[in-house]
Order: sequence, then C-alpha cells, then structure tokens
Amino acid sequence: MGSAGAEAVIPLAAVVGILFALWQWFVVSRVKISGYYQSLGTSNGYHGGPVFEMDRTEEDAVEGSPDERVIMAKCAEIQHAISVGANSFLFTQYKYLSVFMTFFAIIIFLFLGSVNRFSTKAQPCTYTQNQSCKSALANAFFTTIAFLLGAFTSVFSGYLGMKIATYANARTTLEAQKGIGTAFKIAYRSGAVMGFLLASSGLLVLYISINLFKVYYGDDWEGLFEAITGYGLGGSSVALFGRVGGGIYTKAADVGADLVGKVEMDIPEDDPRNPAVIADNVGDNVGDIAGMGSDLFGSYAEATCAALYVASISSFGTNHNFSAILYPLLISAMGIIVCLFTTLFATDFLRIKAISDISRVLKRQLLISTVLMTAGIAVVTFTTLPKSFTIFNFSNPKHVKNWQLFLCVSIGLWAGLVIGYTTEFYTSNAYSPVRDVADSCRTGAATNVIFGLALGYKSTIIPSFALAASIYTSFRLASIYGVAMAALGMLSTVATGLSIDAYGPICDNAGGIAEMAGMSHEVRQRTDALDAAGNTTAAIGKGFAIGSAALVSLALFGAYVSRAGIASIDVLDPRVFAGLMVGSMLPYWFSAMTMKSVGTAALRMVEEVRRQFNTIPGLMEGRTKPDYASCVRISTDASLQKMVPAGFLVMVSPLVAGTFFGVEALAGLLAGALVSGVQVAISASNSGGAWDNAKKYIEAGASDHAKSLGPKGSDAHKAAVIGDTVGDPLKDTSGPSINILIKLMAVESLVFAPFFAEHGGLVFK
Amino acid sequence: MGSAGAEAVIPLAAVVGILFALWQWFVVSRVKISGYYQSLGTSNGYHGGPVFEMDRTEEDAVEGSPDERVIMAKCAEIQHAISVGANSFLFTQYKYLSVFMTFFAIIIFLFLGSVNRFSTKAQPCTYTQNQSCKSALANAFFTTIAFLLGAFTSVFSGYLGMKIATYANARTTLEAQKGIGTAFKIAYRSGAVMGFLLASSGLLVLYISINLFKVYYGDDWEGLFEAITGYGLGGSSVALFGRVGGGIYTKAADVGADLVGKVEMDIPEDDPRNPAVIADNVGDNVGDIAGMGSDLFGSYAEATCAALYVASISSFGTNHNFSAILYPLLISAMGIIVCLFTTLFATDFLRIKAISDISRVLKRQLLISTVLMTAGIAVVTFTTLPKSFTIFNFSNPKHVKNWQLFLCVSIGLWAGLVIGYTTEFYTSNAYSPVRDVADSCRTGAATNVIFGLALGYKSTIIPSFALAASIYTSFRLASIYGVAMAALGMLSTVATGLSIDAYGPICDNAGGIAEMAGMSHEVRQRTDALDAAGNTTAAIGKGFAIGSAALVSLALFGAYVSRAGIASIDVLDPRVFAGLMVGSMLPYWFSAMTMKSVGTAALRMVEEVRRQFNTIPGLMEGRTKPDYASCVRISTDASLQKMVPAGFLVMVSPLVAGTFFGVEALAGLLAGALVSGVQVAISASNSGGAWDNAKKYIEAGASDHAKSLGPKGSDAHKAAVIGDTVGDPLKDTSGPSINILIKLMAVESLVFAPFFAEHGGLVFK
Repeated sequence: MGSAGAEAVIPLAAVVGILFALWQWFVVSRVKISGYYQSLGTSNGYHGGPVFEMDRTEEDAVEGSPDERVIMAKCAEIQHAISVGANSFLFTQYKYLSVFMTFFAIIIFLFLGSVNRFSTKAQPCTYTQNQSCKSALANAFFTTIAFLLGAFTSVFSGYLGMKIATYANARTTLEAQKGIGTAFKIAYRSGAVMGFLLASSGLLVLYISINLFKVYYGDDWEGLFEAITGYGLGGSSVALFGRVGGGIYTKAADVGADLVGKVEMDIPEDDPRNPAVIADNVGDNVGDIAGMGSDLFGSYAEATCAALYVASISSFGTNHNFSAILYPLLISAMGIIVCLFTTLFATDFLRIKAISDISRVLKRQLLISTVLMTAGIAVVTFTTLPKSFTIFNFSNPKHVKNWQLFLCVSIGLWAGLVIGYTTEFYTSNAYSPVRDVADSCRTGAATNVIFGLALGYKSTIIPSFALAASIYTSFRLASIYGVAMAALGMLSTVATGLSIDAYGPICDNAGGIAEMAGMSHEVRQRTDALDAAGNTTAAIGKGFAIGSAALVSLALFGAYVSRAGIASIDVLDPRVFAGLMVGSMLPYWFSAMTMKSVGTAALRMVEEVRRQFNTIPGLMEGRTKPDYASCVRISTDASLQKMVPAGFLVMVSPLVAGTFFGVEALAGLLAGALVSGVQVAISASNSGGAWDNAKKYIEAGASDHAKSLGPKGSDAHKAAVIGDTVGDPLKDTSGPSINILIKLMAVESLVFAPFFAEHGGLVFK
Repeated sequence: MGSAGAEAVIPLAAVVGILFALWQWFVVSRVKISGYYQSLGTSNGYHGGPVFEMDRTEEDAVEGSPDERVIMAKCAEIQHAISVGANSFLFTQYKYLSVFMTFFAIIIFLFLGSVNRFSTKAQPCTYTQNQSCKSALANAFFTTIAFLLGAFTSVFSGYLGMKIATYANARTTLEAQKGIGTAFKIAYRSGAVMGFLLASSGLLVLYISINLFKVYYGDDWEGLFEAITGYGLGGSSVALFGRVGGGIYTKAADVGADLVGKVEMDIPEDDPRNPAVIADNVGDNVGDIAGMGSDLFGSYAEATCAALYVASISSFGTNHNFSAILYPLLISAMGIIVCLFTTLFATDFLRIKAISDISRVLKRQLLISTVLMTAGIAVVTFTTLPKSFTIFNFSNPKHVKNWQLFLCVSIGLWAGLVIGYTTEFYTSNAYSPVRDVADSCRTGAATNVIFGLALGYKSTIIPSFALAASIYTSFRLASIYGVAMAALGMLSTVATGLSIDAYGPICDNAGGIAEMAGMSHEVRQRTDALDAAGNTTAAIGKGFAIGSAALVSLALFGAYVSRAGIASIDVLDPRVFAGLMVGSMLPYWFSAMTMKSVGTAALRMVEEVRRQFNTIPGLMEGRTKPDYASCVRISTDASLQKMVPAGFLVMVSPLVAGTFFGVEALAGLLAGALVSGVQVAISASNSGGAWDNAKKYIEAGASDHAKSLGPKGSDAHKAAVIGDTVGDPLKDTSGPSINILIKLMAVESLVFAPFFAEHGGLVFK
C-alpha cells in the first residue's frame, strides 16, 4: 500500500466507524419513550423533580394502553432523573479537571521547556544522523497541545458514553417487556454506539493531530512523535480522575444503598423507596461507562503513542517511511472494520431466544472479532510494512521481518482473548469457581469472603502467564516496538470490547428502572438475566483493560528508557531495586486510599439513608418519596473530594522519583508498580465479580444447588450480600483504577524523560 | 580481635544463651501444676482422655484449697490435652517431612553432582586465583549434608518451641490468678526460653558445621561456603511446611470453632463445650510457635549463609581472614548477649502493675535491644574487621571501609524497629487505625472488611520505604554483602523478637485454659489483656519476619546472581521481564492455595462441630463432653494434605524456571516474587491483626467509644467477629507463609545455581 493509500484508509475507517455508531443510535432511538422530561430543566443540577407523580405526565405523548402509558412515563421520568444526575456530576468533575489540566499543562510546558533552558534554537537530532531537529521549547509547546487534545478527546469519550447509556437504559427496560432478544439487542446496540464512537474518534483525532503537527515539524519525526506522546498522557490523566472519581461515586452509592436497603430494611435492590437508588444508578453511568470509556481510550492512545515514538527512532523514522510509521494506526483502522462486521453477528445474524443464549453470544463476539482480526492483521502487515526493517533496540538496533511483527500483534490479540475467557471462567456463575464461592455462604459471610479472596488470587495465574508469554515473544521478536504492537493487537478489537463492556451497566440500569417503575416479575427476570451476563462481561472488560494496560505500560516503559537514554535497568543497581520495592507498594497505597474513600463515603450515605427512613413518615410504606437529591450530593461531594489525593499520588510519584532519585530509580518504580499492580487489579476485579455473581446465582435459584442456598433473605443469601458489598469497591473502584495508575505513571515518565535525564536525581548529585 | 578470639566468642555466646534459656525454663517450672497427666499416655496420639471429669484427678498431687485444686487439676488436664495434640501433629508432620527431605536431598546431590558429570577431580577456583578447589561432587555431598543439618536444626527449633509453649500456657493461667504482673513474667520468660534456645542453637550448629567442613575443605573457602548454603535451604524447607501446615491446622480449627461457637451457638471463645476448642489451642502451638520458630530460624540461617558466601568470594575469603569471614556469626553472637540483657528489663527491672503497662514493656524491649545492639555492632565491627577491604560486587570489586559495614548492619537493625513500630501502630487498638476499623462495624461486616483491607494495604507504605532505604544504603555501601549484613542486623535481636512473638500464643492458650477451666471473670480479663498485647506482638513478629525475609531474599538473590555468573539482570531483557511478571504472581497463587485450604478445612470443621452439637445430647448444657479428638483429626488431616501442593509450588517453581527458562528468567522470577510478596505478606498480616484487635477492642469496652459498639453479641460485635474470621487465614496462614516463599525460592536458586548455569534454559537452547 502506498503512503497515500495508508493516509486515506485511516480517516476512512474512522468515518465508517462513526457512521456505524450513528446508525446504531438511530436504531435505538426508534424505541419510543415519553418525551415529557426531556423539556424539563432543573436549575440546581440535582434532580429534585416530580418522580413517580404520575398525574403530571403529558399523556398525549404516550401511546398504547393506559397501563403501558403509566409505565412508559415512569421509565421516562427515572431515565431523566438518572441522566440529569450523571450530567451534573460529570460537569462538576470536568470543572475540577479543567483546573487540574491547566495546571498540569503549565508544568509540562515549563519542565520540558527547561530542558534546553527555553532556547528556541534547533538542536541536532538524537537518532537521525546529520539532521537538525526542532528546539526543546517547540517540543514542550506541542507536547502541551497534544496533552490538551488527548484530555479533551478522553472527556468527550466518557461524556458521550454516559449520554448514550442514559439514553438506552429505559429503552432496554421497555424492550424487555417484548422479550429477552429485543432487549438484548437494544442494550448491545447502545454499547456499540459508545464502542465505535470512542474507537473511531480516538483514531481520527490522533491522525489529524499527527498531520497537523507534521506541518510544523516537517522531517523532524523524532520531535513530532515525542510531542505526540502528550496525547496519551492527556487521555490517561482524564481517565484517572474519571475512574477514581466515578468509581468512588458509584460504589459509595451502591454500598450505601445496599447496606441499609437490602441488609437492614429488607427491601429489594433498586427499590424506589431507597433514597440512594438514583445515586446508585447514576453511578453506573459515571463510573462504569464514562470511567471505563476514558480508561480504554487512554490505553489505546498510549499504546499508539508508544509504538509511534519507538517507530520514529527506528528505520521507519530515519528512512521517513510514512505508511510504515502509520502501521499502528492502520491496525486500529482495520480493527474498527473487523469489529463492525463482528457486531452484526450479535445484532443481526445470531438470535437470542433464551436467557442462556446471552452469554454465549457475548462470548462469541470476542472469538469472532479475534479470528477475523487475525486475518486483518495479516492484511495490514503484509501490505504496509517493508519485508525487513530495523527496530530501535536500546544500544543495538534489531533486524525484524514483517511476519515477525504479524506475530507480535497477533499474540497480543490472542492473549486478550485468553485473559477474557479466563476472567469469564472465574466470574461467571456457570462455572465451578463462583459456585464454590456461593456454596461457602452456607457457613456465613466470613467463609464467603475467604473463598472470594482466594478466587481472586487464583485468577491471576493464567493472565500472568498469558502476559508473560506475549511479552516474551513480542519483546524477543521486535523489542519494545513489538510490545507496543502486542498491546495494540489486544486493543485492536476495542470497539467490540467496549460494546460488550458498556452493555453491562446499561442492563444494570435497565433492571433498576424496571424495579422502580414497578414492572412485572417477568420483565425483572429478563433484565436480571441481561444484567448477570453484564456482570461477567464487565469483568471481562476489566480483564482486557488490565491486560492491555500491562502491555501498554511496558511499551511506555521501554520508550521512556530509550528517551531517557538509559543503557540498561539492572535489578542489582541499588537505585533500581529500591525503586522496585517502592513501586510495588504504590498499587497498595493507592488501593488503600480508594477503598477507604468508598468506605467513608458509604458510611455517610448509610447515615443519610437511615435518617430518611427514620424521619420521613410514610417512606417505607411507599406513600411519600425520598429525597434522592441529598444522596446524589453525598456521592458527588465524596468522589470529588477523594479523587484529588488519589490522583495526586499517581501524578506526583513519577515526578518525585525522577526529579529527586533519578531515571534509574524511576525505572525501578515503574517496573515494580507494573508487575505488582497487574496482580492487585486482576485479583480485585475478579473477586468482586465472583461475589456479585455468587449472590445473583443464589437469587436466581436456577439449579437445585442454588435453590438449596436461597431464596433471597436466607442466611446464605445474606452472607452473599456481604461478599458482594465487599467486592464493590474492589471491582469498581480500586481494581480498575490501578490500570490507570500503571499506565499513567509510565506515560508521564515518558513525557518528562528529557527533563529527568537532564535535571533529575537531585538527591544523588 | 584475633582469629582465636573470634572463634572462642561465638560458641561462648551460644552456650551462654542456652544456659540463660535453661535458667528461664527453671524459673517457669517453679510454678507448680498437677502432675497427674504427665504420666498418662494416649496410644493413638489424639487426646481421648477424661478431660473435665474431676473425680479422677489425683488429689494428693494438688496443693491449696479444694477449689483451687480443682481448677489446677483442670488446667493440668487441658494443658496435657493440648500438649498431646501438638506432639502428635508435629510427629506426623515430621514423618511427612522426613520423606520429603530424603527425596529433596537426593535431588540436591544429583543436580549438583551432575554439574561436572560426577567427576571427583579437583577444579580450578572461580574467584581465588591460582588455587585448586574441591570437585563439584564434593560440594554436592557437603551441600546435602548441610541441607540435612539445617532441616534438623529447624525441626528441633520448632519442636522445642512447641514444648515450652505447651509447658507454659497453663502456668501462665495459674499465675494470672495472682496478678497480671506475675502472669506476664511467666509468659515472657517462656517466650525467652524459645527465643534464646533457637538463636543459640542455630548459631552453634552453624559454627560447628563450618569448622567440621573446614577439616575437609581446608583452604578452599569457595567450596566450603557454597556447601554451607545448604544449611539455609534445609532450614527454610522445614519452615515452609511448618508454616503452611501449622497455619492451615491452626486456622481451620480457629475458623471452624468460631463459626459455629461464636456466630451460631453464641457461646464464648474457648468454651469447653465447643468440640473444636482443643484443636484451636493445639493450633496456636503448632502454627504460631513451631511455624514461627522454624521461619525465623530459616531467615537467620539464610542471611548468614548469604553473607558467608559473598564474603568467601571477597577479600576476606581470598585473603583467608577467618575472623573477618566469621563477622556475620559474631554479630549474631553479640545479639544473643544484648538480648539477654534486654530480657532482664522485662523480667526483672521493669514492673507491670496495670494492664496498660504490658504493651509499653513489650515495646520497650524492642527499643532497648535496638539501642544496645547498635553499640554491640560497633564493638564487633571495629574489633574484627580490617579498616578497609574489598567486597565482591559482580564485575568490579568494591572497596569498603569497616565503618560503612557498621552502617549497613545498623540500618537493617533500625529498619526492623521502624517496621515493628509501624506494625504496632496499624494493629494495636490503642491507635486510630484499628479504632476506625472497629467503628466501621457499626454498618456491618462488609464495611468492616473493606476498612480492614484498606488498612492492610496502607500499612505497606512505611515498611516499603524502610526496606527501600536500607536496601539502597547497604547495597550502595557494600553491595550484596551489605544487604546480607543488613538482614543480619535486623535479625541480630531475633532472640528478643522471638521471645515477644512466642509470648502471644502462650497467652492466647492461657486465656483458653482459663475459660475452659471455668476461672473467674477477673482472671479471664487479665489473660485477655495479656492476649490483646500478644496479638500486637504477633503482628510485630510477622513484620520482622517479612522485613528480614525481604532483605535476606535480596541477599540470597545477589549471591545467586554471582554464583550463576550472570553479569547483569536487565529488566528490559524479555526473559527477565517475563520472569518478573510470573514471579509477582506467585505469592497470589500460593495465597490462593493456602486460603482455600483453610476455607475448605474450616467448612469440614464446621460440619463436624454442628454434627456434634446436633447429635450429642446434653452437650450444649455442659452435661456431656464433646469429641475433641475428631476435630483434632480433621485439622491434622487437612493441614497435612494441603501443605503438600502449596509446598510443591514453592519448591518446584525455581527448579522449573531455572532448568527450562534459564538463569535470567529465574532472576526475574525471584525479583518479582520478592517485591510483590512483601506487599501481600505485610498487608495480609496487618489486616488480620487489625480485625482481631478491633474485635477485642469492642469486647473489652474500655472507652466510651468502644462501649457504644459493644457489648459482646451486639450487631457491631458480630460484624467484628466476621472480620476477625476473615483475617485468620490471612494473618496466620497465607501472610506469614509468603516470607518463606520468597526466601526459599531464593536460597534454592542459590544452591542450584551451578546446575542452572551449566544445564539450564532448555527451552531457549
């Protein structure tokens, strides 16, 4: 493929992806829902409107029988309340973020600008011989711009995901009245909107940025792709706050709601009498949807930046082969097309007739996209890459053949599938691990927690081997570039991964809306089944996120090492080993902060919910409505307050390590955080997922074994609820945030590498 | 000091230590207790005797009033039952161990013998130029002998500890009738018996072995100290099975007893009606006492071996300066003397008048021994070491001054104190962390578990920094030798550390005996107070164990690298990084196995206890006695069955990594397991300790805050019991076993290094 061809394919695929997303949105929008609340504005941003007061519904807008109309109007009301809450939270969060981003942008500019004392003079290139490169000041400027662009795209991705999710949740509920198949499709299509918009816009913005930056940089590709690394940093910084803030929000509400509602008052989940129920549903959208969206976008942006940076100092860069250097973007472009085709299997080719079909179809999505993408990788690799080329490999360049790169990308892709399937095995209640956990509830909450923790620990085995194998192979074949491409291989099916992932919280919300709107038992059963599958897919999504984060971080780490000009990272260098020790501790410190944040916020929530049950007369009988807004406020305040110190820890650690203890200590820190963080994140996510599904297993009572443990309200079920509650912050706050911790520290180190190399290690000087 | 002086000081100190221990034993033995059961034999090894059938007590042997006599006889009975159970378990365990040890001894001999194809020809030395060293076959033979010696000493240490603990428990109970001060002293003296016997005999056996081996080796010190490394491996192998087996035993019984007794039947802890109560008390002795004894002995042996090996290839070795090479042993000898003096503060100089004095005195022990030892280190260092010498430092030797080595040892010592105090802060209910956890019980078990996990995570911060700082400093000043000496510095006060540590389970047992013998509320209160302090000291002991394990492992790791002849361990070598990834997973795999073992064994225990309550008429009313033996059998069988696969994982991993993937992959594996394992172990121990003391805090009700959460049986207390139960396997099984995992893998790699270097890496060949 010529350079022009490659240039054309990337934006084309991105546009096709966006159009496909819009088409899915259009299909979803055909499910009609009362439009009353879409015109209602709430001035304070929190929902204080007339939920559940049916007399004020605009009857004209509603079709069907009076009963159906009432339900539809209720759904619309609840949807509106959730949407307003989510909107309001995200806007407040973005306000905080914009302050932080501005501040950090200034730091980036000053730190990087200071490398050459803010001189505007061109400097000799490091790797391309006999050529002059742009000044450090110019790189500082463009890195800052790229940082802001990445941050903006990440905000956009998260926000858009939240929008479509809150648009789809009530529609899924309504479709669940018709049957499980149609409801599944609506939920899945909505997930696809998010998946494709995110994957496509991420690619498009990056592509446009590269081309615009190129206007200034010309042939100085070293500088160009150094600056582009800022894009990854921006994306990940937003993701950090999105994940942490959203995670605290959602789990404070969830834990608080469960502790009083389910445990003390013995009312069902999502019961409209529970004051925290709206906050809980808002949380799913700001945490699992917006947070996850920003997270995977960050992974994608960082992997691409790492690959591009390494390519720019390889023969692609020094020979100025633009279509070869765009190889990472071409892989992503192919991924969009492959995922598009894969989605059709779920939405059109395959049929969902029974509840048991759901997880089968979702699992097939992973398999189909992986198989197709393997062919896709072959096509891209053999048409764009020269047969043989030289890759930057620290001190001595490495000769690589194009088929070796095909292997690198493919092994990442398949490692993703292995991790995904392993996660499913450990978190789905179709298999023995979760059933063992459910069984341990017989003897109470303590054994449930012990078994769940053990399950989480055990679930790290296969992913670690899968990661080790793909790291070894890709590293061996094509050095750091190979690792970056393995990461991109894993992320190439991100559109499908995100669709599956977003499907989960949408169904969770749909179930909540069905309960709150007082729909029939049958509908609840359907939404519960959709949700149970969603729990597993959420765990799979987290598996992907952490797996790709590990590869991405290693790629960034390698890029950092080359950019900082370190010859080797010897474990037996005292600075490196001390760094390793402290680095491996950081995920624990960070988890402690996020877990405790959820805990204290949940305590506050519990007090508020108890207060309302005790002081609002008629609340328990359903005669008056609770004050949802105060619970929304507690979650919002807690998450905004607590995300700052946790975020601070992640952002500041590499800066302190690099500035005071030097590039070697920082390298140790990154490696330690990476290998330890992977284990913490996987075990936390899977323990949490398993507890959640063990509880659902007992509740569903689908087998004799499950029936012997249930029904709802039995001692075993109560024990299961405790496990589920413990798992909430593990699986939705601290676990997934650690992905970002390891990625962000690595990309930050990469961006600041020239500064550390020049001015770092103050303590030892 | 001359060579002869050094040679004399070591055995002298060891003998003084042993005499001191015997004197303490003599003091303890002056507390008289009915001798009836000491003559009673049980043929099947399980206690099936007539506990609580007072009419058969031999009245003549008992002094005092009839009431007192009954109580004393009861105490004697229970003590006997515990002692018989512990004896029987340890003997069965040692039977298993002897099979394993024989098998492993053969492997060692064959693997190491094969390095030079079993040739008996002398070979040129590696580091000492122009000298001929003994054959690889001879080294294989002596390593095997050293291995067996280490294993034997470890068994002896564990067994002896158990003996004195089961001898002291009832005596502590009886003394608690007189007052808290005397009871404390008896418990502490008993701990000291174990501490001093272990530290002294470890030193003595090692010293004698070195001198005996020297008869054969002569001037070939490389071979001599290579062979001596087997001593560390033997010690640690036994410790592994001791910790894992003992840990599973004790927690299966404890969890099982609590789940039915406290949670379901609402009877107090250690109530004689609970069928698992004897098994629970046996468990304290085989797990916390025998296991911990073997563990710390292993650390001590390994640190010394690592230091000796590195010294043998440094200028000490090549110049044949024997007193300088014995420096590690001299430090330990000085430690015994310092600890002896320190112990007098607890037993003679300081007074315990009130409950609040206990933990103050115990804490002072740490401080006093650390301050005195700092002076001791100075004395040893400046009298035995040459002013300046050369230390092996991989490719280029390092010039070191003796004051630098003083700093290395001291920083290890003081890092131990920091870790100990940090552990105390996070696990004692005198401070806010545990009180916060107790407070979180208000909202139920789930928040309690969340807060406890967060506390454990948080408690890794300071120890990690302390370790990083001591690693950096000692490594920088004196390379791997410095690290080994820092580890020995931390372990130099091991006699005091072990005394404090053994004190805990002795008081735990004493409390159990008081409850079972039906002693007054006042006595129970005293033993509870002793026990609460013991919980914290147990946690401190675990902190020391893990901190020293980290330093020891790094020292062994460094020794391994030099023995395997690896030039550098580059994190960016694909094999190393893949190893790091898998290595950091191993503590999780191992924890999953041990946690689940405890879980399943506890389930079996619960069923048995329930069965007995349901089928034995009059049991709940106290009219008939339960079948203790069947519970003892369940714990025994479970622990023996389950310790094998867990032990297998630890022993086989380095062999597989080294043989198939080579020395670099193994190096990565060790580093990964080390840095990740430290965090897992610290957080598990401290979470468990905190939950336990949060429960005790609520039970004691010593403040208004505590009273608002209690009393026993309140909802908050029930939640606290669940947390305590979750913490049991974390703090007493998986957490402390991980110390041994990281040490054992490192020492095993060191011992097998010549084999791996010669024949390893099959996959890549």
